[in-house]
Amino acid sequence: MAANGKVKVGIIGSQFEADIHAASFQIMPQEAEVVAVASPTPGHPEALAKRYGIGRVFGDYRQMLAETDIEMVTIAAPNDLHAQMTIDAANAGKHVVCEKPLCMTLEEADEMIDTCRRKGVLLLYAEELFFTPKYVRAKRMADEGAFGKVYLVKQSEKHFGPHAAWFWDVERSGGGVFMDMGCHGIAFCYWFLDRPAIRSVLCHMGTYVHADKTRGEDDSLCILEFANGAVGRVENSWARRGGMDDRIEVYGEGGVTYANLHMGNALPTYSEYGYGYAVEKAPTTKGWTYPVFEELWNYGFPQEMRHFACCVRGKEEPIATGEDGRVVMEAIYAGYASAGKGEKISLPFRPQGVKRPIDLWLAV
Amino acid sequence: MAANGKVKVGIIGSQFEADIHAASFQIMPQEAEVVAVASPTPGHPEALAKRYGIGRVFGDYRQMLAETDIEMVTIAAPNDLHAQMTIDAANAGKHVVCEKPLCMTLEEADEMIDTCRRKGVLLLYAEELFFTPKYVRAKRMADEGAFGKVYLVKQSEKHFGPHAAWFWDVERSGGGVFMDMGCHGIAFCYWFLDRPAIRSVLCHMGTYVHADKTRGEDDSLCILEFANGAVGRVENSWARRGGMDDRIEVYGEGGVTYANLHMGNALPTYSEYGYGYAVEKAPTTKGWTYPVFEELWNYGFPQEMRHFACCVRGKEEPIATGEDGRVVMEAIYAGYASAGKGEKISLPFRPQGVKRPIDLWLAV
Amino acid sequence: MAANGKVKVGIIGSQFEADIHAASFQIMPQEAEVVAVASPTPGHPEALAKRYGIGRVFGDYRQMLAETDIEMVTIAAPNDLHAQMTIDAANAGKHVVCEKPLCMTLEEADEMIDTCRRKGVLLLYAEELFFTPKYVRAKRMADEGAFGKVYLVKQSEKHFGPHAAWFWDVERSGGGVFMDMGCHGIAFCYWFLDRPAIRSVLCHMGTYVHADKTRGEDDSLCILEFANGAVGRVENSWARRGGMDDRIEVYGEGGVTYANLHMGNALPTYSEYGYGYAVEKAPTTKGWTYPVFEELWNYGFPQEMRHFACCVRGKEEPIATGEDGRVVMEAIYAGYASAGKGEKISLPFRPQGVKRPIDLWLAV
Amino acid sequence: MAANGKVKVGIIGSQFEADIHAASFQIMPQEAEVVAVASPTPGHPEALAKRYGIGRVFGDYRQMLAETDIEMVTIAAPNDLHAQMTIDAANAGKHVVCEKPLCMTLEEADEMIDTCRRKGVLLLYAEELFFTPKYVRAKRMADEGAFGKVYLVKQSEKHFGPHAAWFWDVERSGGGVFMDMGCHGIAFCYWFLDRPAIRSVLCHMGTYVHADKTRGEDDSLCILEFANGAVGRVENSWARRGGMDDRIEVYGEGGVTYANLHMGNALPTYSEYGYGYAVEKAPTTKGWTYPVFEELWNYGFPQEMRHFACCVRGKEEPIATGEDGRVVMEAIYAGYASAGKGEKISLPFRPQGVKRPIDLWLAV
Repeated sequence: MAANGKVKVGIIGSQFEADIHAASFQIMPQEAEVVAVASPTPGHPEALAKRYGIGRVFGDYRQMLAETDIEMVTIAAPNDLHAQMTIDAANAGKHVVCEKPLCMTLEEADEMIDTCRRKGVLLLYAEELFFTPKYVRAKRMADEGAFGKVYLVKQSEKHFGPHAAWFWDVERSGGGVFMDMGCHGIAFCYWFLDRPAIRSVLCHMGTYVHADKTRGEDDSLCILEFANGAVGRVENSWARRGGMDDRIEVYGEGGVTYANLHMGNALPTYSEYGYGYAVEKAPTTKGWTYPVFEELWNYGFPQEMRHFACCVRGKEEPIATGEDGRVVMEAIYAGYASAGKGEKISLPFRPQGVKRPIDLWLAV
Repeated sequence: MAANGKVKVGIIGSQFEADIHAASFQIMPQEAEVVAVASPTPGHPEALAKRYGIGRVFGDYRQMLAETDIEMVTIAAPNDLHAQMTIDAANAGKHVVCEKPLCMTLEEADEMIDTCRRKGVLLLYAEELFFTPKYVRAKRMADEGAFGKVYLVKQSEKHFGPHAAWFWDVERSGGGVFMDMGCHGIAFCYWFLDRPAIRSVLCHMGTYVHADKTRGEDDSLCILEFANGAVGRVENSWARRGGMDDRIEVYGEGGVTYANLHMGNALPTYSEYGYGYAVEKAPTTKGWTYPVFEELWNYGFPQEMRHFACCVRGKEEPIATGEDGRVVMEAIYAGYASAGKGEKISLPFRPQGVKRPIDLWLAV
Repeated sequence: MAANGKVKVGIIGSQFEADIHAASFQIMPQEAEVVAVASPTPGHPEALAKRYGIGRVFGDYRQMLAETDIEMVTIAAPNDLHAQMTIDAANAGKHVVCEKPLCMTLEEADEMIDTCRRKGVLLLYAEELFFTPKYVRAKRMADEGAFGKVYLVKQSEKHFGPHAAWFWDVERSGGGVFMDMGCHGIAFCYWFLDRPAIRSVLCHMGTYVHADKTRGEDDSLCILEFANGAVGRVENSWARRGGMDDRIEVYGEGGVTYANLHMGNALPTYSEYGYGYAVEKAPTTKGWTYPVFEELWNYGFPQEMRHFACCVRGKEEPIATGEDGRVVMEAIYAGYASAGKGEKISLPFRPQGVKRPIDLWLAV
Repeated sequence: MAANGKVKVGIIGSQFEADIHAASFQIMPQEAEVVAVASPTPGHPEALAKRYGIGRVFGDYRQMLAETDIEMVTIAAPNDLHAQMTIDAANAGKHVVCEKPLCMTLEEADEMIDTCRRKGVLLLYAEELFFTPKYVRAKRMADEGAFGKVYLVKQSEKHFGPHAAWFWDVERSGGGVFMDMGCHGIAFCYWFLDRPAIRSVLCHMGTYVHADKTRGEDDSLCILEFANGAVGRVENSWARRGGMDDRIEVYGEGGVTYANLHMGNALPTYSEYGYGYAVEKAPTTKGWTYPVFEELWNYGFPQEMRHFACCVRGKEEPIATGEDGRVVMEAIYAGYASAGKGEKISLPFRPQGVKRPIDLWLAV
């Protein structure tokens, strides 16, 4: 493989997240280029390749891993496939960017991390909130002392349901909205507070609107106690109408800040006729809408992918790793256990023989 | 007493809340007039009387209760005095408006309700959020079906600490911010959802900023499960900088609404020189501020007091009663117990021999 | 007539504005009661009377003026009828509340003022912005010195067209949106700055969207230079989609404030199903909407009508009079002349023989 | 010069705008690199060079123009120097990026354009609003038909005064805030509407707050009539307290949109202690502030500079040229003339022998 030049990337997956990966590398093309895409869904990888001018298409990601020039793969596949794909990629000597959540079980997380370490490849965890410009700005203010000691960090992400059918199937997803989006909020609070250990998790959830579609929860609230005495609150929903909603609040003894990626960044717009696109999961472009601008950039996806490529070239130290993903996984397990038992769960929490996080809640 | 004409009112108390009562009757003067004020703090009741043109001043509220023309008293005294004052007033044949929270113990709540019933006087519970115009508007939309089935109601009230010293003393207050302001949010969710029974309470709290001043919690989050399947989330803080913050969010399967009484209603203002007053607990009027307008009216205090006077005259049915206050008290007890144990508490919850709610948390 | 008790009021008109008058007296009923309504439109006054429990209905307002107990009439009729109705009412010894704009010509304005003066009745000018709570708040901050010397005041009112057909007919209305709503903004700036003389008017307007319906302008911008060196900017539209928009901006050398009566006061709401009513002229209640609360109170209509009744009883000095209305009329004439000529018009401005303001623009 | 590789850039200037240029090339480094800076102010160019790692420093820009590898220069010097610098650069065979406004006179504009054309170099006009992501989004919605026919575009930019002393001196700047920032708004409306000819300009201005510092106007409003029947309104101030304010409004017969680069994009923040930086020209970071994030990117400066470098390489067609700058200059001349005469000025407008735009206003 090349020691310099653009990092050659292969994408595993061909739908929503894979498209974001391809678009992100295109928006910030300095450090990397996507040269291949692999997905078993007939027609999908071809379409993605055409959309982004990607040269090579594979039905089986293992074939793609045999391409010697590819240095980094990104995994944008259902959660239950993350571990195997990561391990295969590491064994093929590729650096791995794995979508959130990291995997299905803590055992998988350990194996992913260990394999990558042994093989000398990076395991990079695709948590874009570490790169979201507006949130990064909040963290910089906190680091500059704007709020004094921060005692509470909140993150919330809500919409009316996921973009692919497998999310509704808890066998494949491992959980509902708390697994799908709570992982963002847990990672965010952990990162914002400079990675203190999580001491306990208290969680409440339910299936309020989509019981006809899923056994997974569609609304959740999770409270994290950190070793530094601060608290995180993570609020998620698949049952919030009106399009995407992603926001944070930061409370310190000396101040407070609010950052809203959607209504707080948008162009309030009224249209009789509609227009191309408003925002992720918006139901319409007619009437009043809140279109955002440069959506991927404002989430931080291109910055994230650029960072990962820089890490491969040794220009930057990884700031989102498999270890972060494992911390999040442990909190997710603790969260489902907490919601199931109706009590606070102390960490470390290492349930044995549980196949997917949501089982700790559904079992009750 | 008169069967018609304006209801003659006596106020017990002379500080922050008593001033709101007096001002509220003045803003909507059709149905009632304040004729007396009682408070043992030297100079205070006289000052209040002068400010609002109140004719009679008493150092001891029991003397005021002897005034035969007074039909209704409002209690704006520390929490630990509510029960005795209510009972005394009822025994004197006066209708009672009692500030929130209703009292210190569930036994007190029972006795207050029973005494008033036996004496044939009304026990009116001063929860102004039932009258807050913006929140009433949200409820009307919900009642009109705007959101379909409502599954989640949130209410939040935050500032940087109470306006009187006794709040910091848990002996007198019975608890910290959850007792002081969580009572609003619990009542609000209960009312908004049309008073379904509360099935369980899960609560988390801590003292993050004001440990030098109080043993009470200064930040709390409370999750209520209702018999109709909906959830309430109540978030409170005495540790939020920048002035008062009071807001709600309502989520239904068919929609969502947000109402913010402060930044969402204010005149964003920059001033080099400052001006008279911005908003409750605002630290300054210089720089950027969020002044509100017609503050009491926008909270609903005048509408509330007018309603209570109408109830005394039999023109309206009470919509905020001692029974509501007791429901809230039970949830508060359950909340402190939940925070203490780190687990969900099922209702009915009837702890024996507990002197004040916060003991269930502090004891742990 | 009675020297005390509630002022007995007769309303002339039965549509949009008449309804607001009736509702306003009902919201603040202390000082006045509506006892009669007069309108020639078959069925309309009866419907209004039924809606508000008004006892007497007349087809001809002159018959209503013969009712001896009526002390004050409010005129909510097309602009071209204001003068005659006012004169008739004054001759009948009734105090007059006249809707904006005051009339059609400056000669009419003089005669209205003179007649009322000679007959010893009040001529009250129904400019509710002098009573709008949020705007009153801005003025109070200005008066408290928050902004230092105020050099610029802006007021804007926009929607997608008037509520009654006669507005489109410039013979009856005298002008388009500048006449209909610019009169609010001119009055507002004049009042906010404490009534300095208007030195000049510079105005720009056009018919951009509704040329199929009207010869009147549907969008306008008016710049007023005042004797104290400050400037007013008044922006109006009948071509703005999405519902009502009413806002002000105040700029001083030491600060700035913004007040928005609609999106800045509303409950941002998403509804799949819709609900009763969002806000004046909102096209729908589905999707995202901005419902306001206590709409009339937040405009200041009830406060205005209460004030007028207090003036009749001598309890308050009129703060919105025929003289204010005449100042506004002169600025409106100057504004149309300015737009017609494309140049700034100095005041005093007393065009001779012009039947309606818009003629000075249309003539060009 | 090189036909490929990164475009080598020299910056003329060393202060506010020069810093923005250097930072912008650094943020988007794919297409260009800054290799030299020239400024006669002792110490300044050295400091800039150090800040951004720029290799070569010159006291005289003419020396820098002698460097054969430099392909493009950017001019960030006072307005009265733009023309000579552009001509010198063109004669040296360098492509020119000239800051706004283009120059001082229409004769200069012609000569700049002609010289660059004859020398075969690009004259690129640094109007970043053509690249502002949020505004580009609004234009895309308009182009997609969201608003139907657009009849009114507004742009406003306000703060409390410029960042360098020469702006106050109308000999050097050519005008006050209308020249300094009105040029943005004029260009914006022209671009947004797809460059229809400007038919007329009507302008109003005054010196309300800073008369002790400048003869230039510190507040202005300009109305542009375009050949396609639409109107532009451009509002500017050097007398608005509280930090930068930049916003647009777009009105069409079928809809409306609002985009606010500052309060509408910011993180509402309260800080007791302050922090590094809030936003351009913010007076403080304590109390309530509105910090923005990725400020240069959100204005579009890096995107603009990247585009200019792409134009030099022939990869993109220039979308902001000297011709645009000349159109703006003509409107500025017409605007000052309009404000001076108090009347609408028709275009084409070609005043003879006027040294600077503001003379047409000051002369009156």
